[in-house]
Amino acid sequence: MTESSESNKLAILLFDRITALDAVGPYEVLSRLPGIETCFVAKEKGPIRTDNRSLGLVADYTFEEISEPYMLLIPGGFGVTEVMKDEAPLNWIRKAHEKTQWTTSVCTGSLILAAAGLLKGLKATCHWASLDLLEGYGAQPTKERIVREGKIMTAAGVSAGIDMGLQLAAFEADENVAKTIQLSIEYDPQPPFDCGSPDKAPKAMVDFILSKNKQRYSAHAAKQ
Amino acid sequence: MTESSESNKLAILLFDRITALDAVGPYEVLSRLPGIETCFVAKEKGPIRTDNRSLGLVADYTFEEISEPYMLLIPGGFGVTEVMKDEAPLNWIRKAHEKTQWTTSVCTGSLILAAAGLLKGLKATCHWASLDLLEGYGAQPTKERIVREGKIMTAAGVSAGIDMGLQLAAFEADENVAKTIQLSIEYDPQPPFDCGSPDKAPKAMVDFILSKNKQRYSAHAAKQ
Repeated sequence: MTESSESNKLAILLFDRITALDAVGPYEVLSRLPGIETCFVAKEKGPIRTDNRSLGLVADYTFEEISEPYMLLIPGGFGVTEVMKDEAPLNWIRKAHEKTQWTTSVCTGSLILAAAGLLKGLKATCHWASLDLLEGYGAQPTKERIVREGKIMTAAGVSAGIDMGLQLAAFEADENVAKTIQLSIEYDPQPPFDCGSPDKAPKAMVDFILSKNKQRYSAHAAKQ
Repeated sequence: MTESSESNKLAILLFDRITALDAVGPYEVLSRLPGIETCFVAKEKGPIRTDNRSLGLVADYTFEEISEPYMLLIPGGFGVTEVMKDEAPLNWIRKAHEKTQWTTSVCTGSLILAAAGLLKGLKATCHWASLDLLEGYGAQPTKERIVREGKIMTAAGVSAGIDMGLQLAAFEADENVAKTIQLSIEYDPQPPFDCGSPDKAPKAMVDFILSKNKQRYSAHAAKQ
């Protein structure tokens, strides 16, 4: 694959233990924008395994090969704890952010933006179970599905990246293009239950996910 | 990777020119079911490129290696036209279907089930722009987001696989488990527009997608 200078690049970061839908939701929307070239980028090229290890997503480009993306998209997943400690992705993000049109994240991807120092003093969102962690990096945790601060847009957990993709599509092209994309992916959600946010779920369920989330993050950190 | 006999396998078919979200939406839900082992399966192992060519999803297993999946999930995408003519995936699907607990599809994946002869006389759904094609295989095109006929479940276009995943999760485990998954992927959809089905979209937009869809399917068929 060669870098083309004619189209605008959407660079999506891949890393070990990524949550697939964080990346693939907005990819499915934004890659349909006219003039966008979607590039999956990682420290090294090749297959990157997801959080549950059962899917490999292929990184086609290294950081060096995509130095000036038009849009930057940072997904989340349990692997963010490692990315947050690794200067290679953090430097790539900092440098790319200087010239991006949009710098975005889904789920715990905002913790990576925060660790790169990009969210200081800014409102931002995250997966609800990790939202409070943003504070440690000087960001203002904001319980909304999509939070925009200038050219930075952060989305809440996992599936929120689809909603963010459509908002971005409307900013980047126009509402008509965004609606056409929505229609083409038949995004007319009909969840069989109404339990998708902690405000709507029983407290025991919220607590269960919070404790599992903490265990996983700390178990992962302990392996270092 | 070795086949484990202790867990129930969810086999997700991959093929050239697949639509990524068709597979990754339900994967993100169903792989969170207790006791499920998710396996991405293709004719040959290795990276499979998506419809727009910008993402590679890795097939870890061949058809021979996953002969008796518990659940079968067939995604869609422009590449279905080729799969529908290929006896290798069709035979795998027919044989697997004899013993599955669930045989499912997302988007134009139902055309593959239809071509395999599994939908004769049955109601089924598909991406809205290709729904009428089901009729040619003896199925009854049904304009609903999720259609269940016994152990066969078909979902409408692309994003509908997430809704189907949650319904399946409730059948497979219980409503509490399905709701916990919904909360963990923060599936509290807030599309910025209400244009996700042809009933809600302007006629010109519907016609535009229909004509593009036909062009793509026929352009692809012409390359054979």
